Amino acid sequence: MRFHDEDPDVDALYGDLSAAELQPLWRQAGLLPRSPRTIAPHVWPWKTVRPLAERAGELVGIERGGDRRVLALSHPDLGGKPFATPTLWAGIQYLNAHESAPPHRHSPAALRFVMEGSGVWTLVNGDPVLMEPGDLVLTPSYNWHGHDNPGDRPMVWFDGLDLPMIQSLDAVFFEEGPDELEPYAASRQSRSEASYATAGLVPSGAISSPDTRTHGLASPLLAYRWSATAAALERSLDAAGSDYALMRYTDPATGADVMPTLRAEILRVRGAGRVPAHRKVGSSVVLAHHGSGTSLIGDVEVSWTPGDIFVVPSWTAVSHRAEEDSDLFVLSDSPVIEKVGLGRQELV
Amino acid sequence: MRFHDEDPDVDALYGDLSAAELQPLWRQAGLLPRSPRTIAPHVWPWKTVRPLAERAGELVGIERGGDRRVLALSHPDLGGKPFATPTLWAGIQYLNAHESAPPHRHSPAALRFVMEGSGVWTLVNGDPVLMEPGDLVLTPSYNWHGHDNPGDRPMVWFDGLDLPMIQSLDAVFFEEGPDELEPYAASRQSRSEASYATAGLVPSGAISSPDTRTHGLASPLLAYRWSATAAALERSLDAAGSDYALMRYTDPATGADVMPTLRAEILRVRGAGRVPAHRKVGSSVVLAHHGSGTSLIGDVEVSWTPGDIFVVPSWTAVSHRAEEDSDLFVLSDSPVIEKVGLGRQELV
Amino acid sequence: MRFHDEDPDVDALYGDLSAAELQPLWRQAGLLPRSPRTIAPHVWPWKTVRPLAERAGELVGIERGGDRRVLALSHPDLGGKPFATPTLWAGIQYLNAHESAPPHRHSPAALRFVMEGSGVWTLVNGDPVLMEPGDLVLTPSYNWHGHDNPGDRPMVWFDGLDLPMIQSLDAVFFEEGPDELEPYAASRQSRSEASYATAGLVPSGAISSPDTRTHGLASPLLAYRWSATAAALERSLDAAGSDYALMRYTDPATGADVMPTLRAEILRVRGAGRVPAHRKVGSSVVLAHHGSGTSLIGDVEVSWTPGDIFVVPSWTAVSHRAEEDSDLFVLSDSPVIEKVGLGRQELV
Amino acid sequence: MRFHDEDPDVDALYGDLSAAELQPLWRQAGLLPRSPRTIAPHVWPWKTVRPLAERAGELVGIERGGDRRVLALSHPDLGGKPFATPTLWAGIQYLNAHESAPPHRHSPAALRFVMEGSGVWTLVNGDPVLMEPGDLVLTPSYNWHGHDNPGDRPMVWFDGLDLPMIQSLDAVFFEEGPDELEPYAASRQSRSEASYATAGLVPSGAISSPDTRTHGLASPLLAYRWSATAAALERSLDAAGSDYALMRYTDPATGADVMPTLRAEILRVRGAGRVPAHRKVGSSVVLAHHGSGTSLIGDVEVSWTPGDIFVVPSWTAVSHRAEEDSDLFVLSDSPVIEKVGLGRQELV
Repeated sequence: MRFHDEDPDVDALYGDLSAAELQPLWRQAGLLPRSPRTIAPHVWPWKTVRPLAERAGELVGIERGGDRRVLALSHPDLGGKPFATPTLWAGIQYLNAHESAPPHRHSPAALRFVMEGSGVWTLVNGDPVLMEPGDLVLTPSYNWHGHDNPGDRPMVWFDGLDLPMIQSLDAVFFEEGPDELEPYAASRQSRSEASYATAGLVPSGAISSPDTRTHGLASPLLAYRWSATAAALERSLDAAGSDYALMRYTDPATGADVMPTLRAEILRVRGAGRVPAHRKVGSSVVLAHHGSGTSLIGDVEVSWTPGDIFVVPSWTAVSHRAEEDSDLFVLSDSPVIEKVGLGRQELV
Repeated sequence: MRFHDEDPDVDALYGDLSAAELQPLWRQAGLLPRSPRTIAPHVWPWKTVRPLAERAGELVGIERGGDRRVLALSHPDLGGKPFATPTLWAGIQYLNAHESAPPHRHSPAALRFVMEGSGVWTLVNGDPVLMEPGDLVLTPSYNWHGHDNPGDRPMVWFDGLDLPMIQSLDAVFFEEGPDELEPYAASRQSRSEASYATAGLVPSGAISSPDTRTHGLASPLLAYRWSATAAALERSLDAAGSDYALMRYTDPATGADVMPTLRAEILRVRGAGRVPAHRKVGSSVVLAHHGSGTSLIGDVEVSWTPGDIFVVPSWTAVSHRAEEDSDLFVLSDSPVIEKVGLGRQELV
Repeated sequence: MRFHDEDPDVDALYGDLSAAELQPLWRQAGLLPRSPRTIAPHVWPWKTVRPLAERAGELVGIERGGDRRVLALSHPDLGGKPFATPTLWAGIQYLNAHESAPPHRHSPAALRFVMEGSGVWTLVNGDPVLMEPGDLVLTPSYNWHGHDNPGDRPMVWFDGLDLPMIQSLDAVFFEEGPDELEPYAASRQSRSEASYATAGLVPSGAISSPDTRTHGLASPLLAYRWSATAAALERSLDAAGSDYALMRYTDPATGADVMPTLRAEILRVRGAGRVPAHRKVGSSVVLAHHGSGTSLIGDVEVSWTPGDIFVVPSWTAVSHRAEEDSDLFVLSDSPVIEKVGLGRQELV
Repeated sequence: MRFHDEDPDVDALYGDLSAAELQPLWRQAGLLPRSPRTIAPHVWPWKTVRPLAERAGELVGIERGGDRRVLALSHPDLGGKPFATPTLWAGIQYLNAHESAPPHRHSPAALRFVMEGSGVWTLVNGDPVLMEPGDLVLTPSYNWHGHDNPGDRPMVWFDGLDLPMIQSLDAVFFEEGPDELEPYAASRQSRSEASYATAGLVPSGAISSPDTRTHGLASPLLAYRWSATAAALERSLDAAGSDYALMRYTDPATGADVMPTLRAEILRVRGAGRVPAHRKVGSSVVLAHHGSGTSLIGDVEVSWTPGDIFVVPSWTAVSHRAEEDSDLFVLSDSPVIEKVGLGRQELV
């Protein structure tokens, strides 16, 4: 039996296969690599991104159709797609003073981490959620959402979505809402927080039915306030007697990740502290929120200060070293990796 | 065919069955009632219980063997057993100034709701948990626990256990610890709170393994502070625009009940507010924490002020009316009723 | 401080506590034993039970009100209650030729294991389920069920229920149906088997909704045929190369136990084979179906042949020795013990 | 504010964004379509594929490195990738008489549906699984597997994998085994079937531990025999009194899909029967196993006979009409779609 491609019969076979929309597996070198063959590490420095966002704010309006003034991080290894990693969308959204972004909804889930500015309200299914620096705000899959900045200064936040994943599943749906945001009563506390912002205490459901708590696919708590997060990190560090603390944002009604597709974590590293090198299946986008330090990703060293964003590719080792007390916000696709049974993680 | 018990052959059969440790089902009237045939409502007034607890404090010491100075609520319909309902133990524990109760552990799960006093520490597997009025403190199944009152005033708290249930399952295990409590560093915040007291934020597990969060059978959070509970109730009432709010204490890592066997809830009713009549399968013990009001349980009317304790039997309608802003702490066996598929609840 | 009961002040306290329906925990010796203090092992020999069942068949009719001709195993340590263990009901049901038992339903769940006879149909919510020797037939909680014997010979089967458990939870509901069974089309295969009797293949739900398979609290498969069970045991023994095989009856749609409260297992032991001594929390009722052998339960030795029934109390060691190829059907409360987090099992 | 791209400042901005690896969301027309923008329906006729597979069998050997003689269905809308849909791999594997394919393992999960031939064994982690026409055989994620054809005739089967999905998650791992298959004892029944091939009966776990049944991420049953499948379909059709029956292959220990990523179903349609038009999120690959008929997919009509394979794209309506009694095997990505909360299905 022959296995050399110069054979004219084999050549003919390959031609006929191609015509029949078939491909021989044995010629697919690289289809099944020993470990993930992925993108390179990459960093988007804030000193570059911030001025561009501001220029976009000056030059480009928000119109129905465009809907949002977002700069998408477009990883150079992803063929021109506006994606930060093969599974994650990351972008910078810029909302001018006295500007608003019209309501829409979509099957991809989104979360926001506020970088600059204050006093913007995100309306999620009619619940006004205040946005302040360091807050994590959720707009789960197919929830209506719009943004309103009634204040006098622009706001900039980080947008994280599962769009690449949902696109690869052929499951993207999108719907426009009315052109204008509905009127709302500005309150420092959303209705979602009134019900779910106390640890270990949730509404007990209607008095007449066994359990009407909403155990949905995403968290019923829509805002995680920086003041609470910072205090929790400090307590956790003190209790652990460690150089660093990693905490996970969760659905307080189930303990699950904030979205079925997205994990959000916050890592605080003490000044001069180190997080040892580790790697896991699945990719992450990391946003430096406070402090400064250096991360080694594979063999790429990234020095960061607030606002810098970098990606940690799948199965690529990463370690961190802080020069001062620092906070890193980490977005990853781990919930999906774990749901399909491929979660794997190790120190390296 | 005959079916009259006067028949001598039938009588002989019944005699022979009895000798063989057999009983004819058809003579078991009442074995399968149309709906639960249960105990009557009952109340233990604080003005009666409080002085007795104090007298016990004066007259009776805490010795290894007795282990705890607890007065168990003994429902008169339960044949002299020290049980409040067929499934629930409820008691009043009294700890004098400068007194401590030695460590032990047992398979029944326990919770405490502080009624009077301040500055007692409960050590749960070595974690010192401060107890203050209105706090809910957990000592889950088979966790070592002891109590220490270093202060100058006695403390009184409510004890709730699943002991009758566990006894009926023939699953009671008990183990004595050392005679003395281990030394501990008194801190206003337990280690469990350092990790789990922020809504929607939990430790993310070791950096080197997929998920090492403790998803045990009971809550990793051991204390639910009254200040947080009261604020949550107020927010919940404001948000709902209702006369009352019922909240459930939960395991913040899973959203489940605080114990696999016990549900703990807190009900706040505005002055002149009403909770409509409802009933459910399974029994409850209710402790009036603040305020005053009247509850109608079946056809028994109970007026309550702080410290009064009453039971709501299975499938018995209950409604509440508050005369001033009031808080009722509610302990029930609902988690087990629901796990075996018999949860049923209705307005009546 | 005093702790001697001869003190008149202490005596007075105890009197006043009793009057107030309170009991001092420290006088409750035995309330918290080191390990379960349970019933003794006990056996009901078939040679005693069988003739009594037949006599009941001759002397006692089945009338609305009595509903069933069942002899309940009444353990002598349970104070005259018709219960085999603190959690389990076990009985022998006898149905004469051309006799039927009227429909009713109740919250306790029941299962049947056929001991003698053939050709009886149990109607479960209208689905006619044929009963043959060695078959396990389910009548889950609150499912309507009646029995019909159109044949010329009586049938005898084992009844297992969770009634003691449900009674101790105050959750017994019962409802009579019409006096007569509805007409039915006798078929060797129930509708439940048509849908669920093939391993690893279940109805896929309506074509228009995500998943309409019934994932209820009990198995949608109502009959487990002896021919399939016997073949599975034989295959399992061959594959394991062991002296014995223990298999669990499960809900084929979820893998859970057949009922939320009851575990059913079948143990085949080869002639001269042994099952080593082990114990677990929770009690079991064991029915010898085939063969003969001896079991050591605690320090009680029981020799058994087909039809003998014995109990294995909680946390009591049991070992088995077969004299010929033997099958033991085992009913236990393990699902509830495990759901409340108290499952514990060990070789001894 | 300006929003016209001819503006030189805006042009400059776009240039600078591009240089910074950023893309403006508002220029990404089509990124968020109203509903999935997916591939077209496509069919691979068996009369074309079968001769090509045979020619490959004649011309191409199986060598370490190529590992498998598989023709991958390469959808023309997927840019030359060897994928049948954006999430599913489908291929035809051809194994000559007296040939074997060496062991390897990989994180993508695979299943096989036998089209032609008989007497091949697939070794899954050392368990020899016989393959006969119509059998479904599983090789779950990271299980070692190889194939051996000791017989005198070639075998052809359908391969279904989640490879595109796992690749898009950057989670592909692959490991080669030894060059030769280990020796094995050919048996008509695998060890997995000895333990799990009886509906509702599973190994009960070691006698000394609470539950050691394997509740893994994939089914412990590795083969679903056509004889059992065909009988189940027939019973299901009879019971339902319907023109068609759709059954799902499941993990008998949990009721879940056979793999965390893949759903396998079998649809039997009576001669002249119709399955009404419906659509769902996520894509499917359909293999005609028996019979003949016509399917309308979107607006493409496909007539099929045994061996034909076609795809049903996401959110595309499909209806079927059989000309004779017909069986269609259906592979889909529904488990993942449902796990991320995007399951949606409707009649159209």
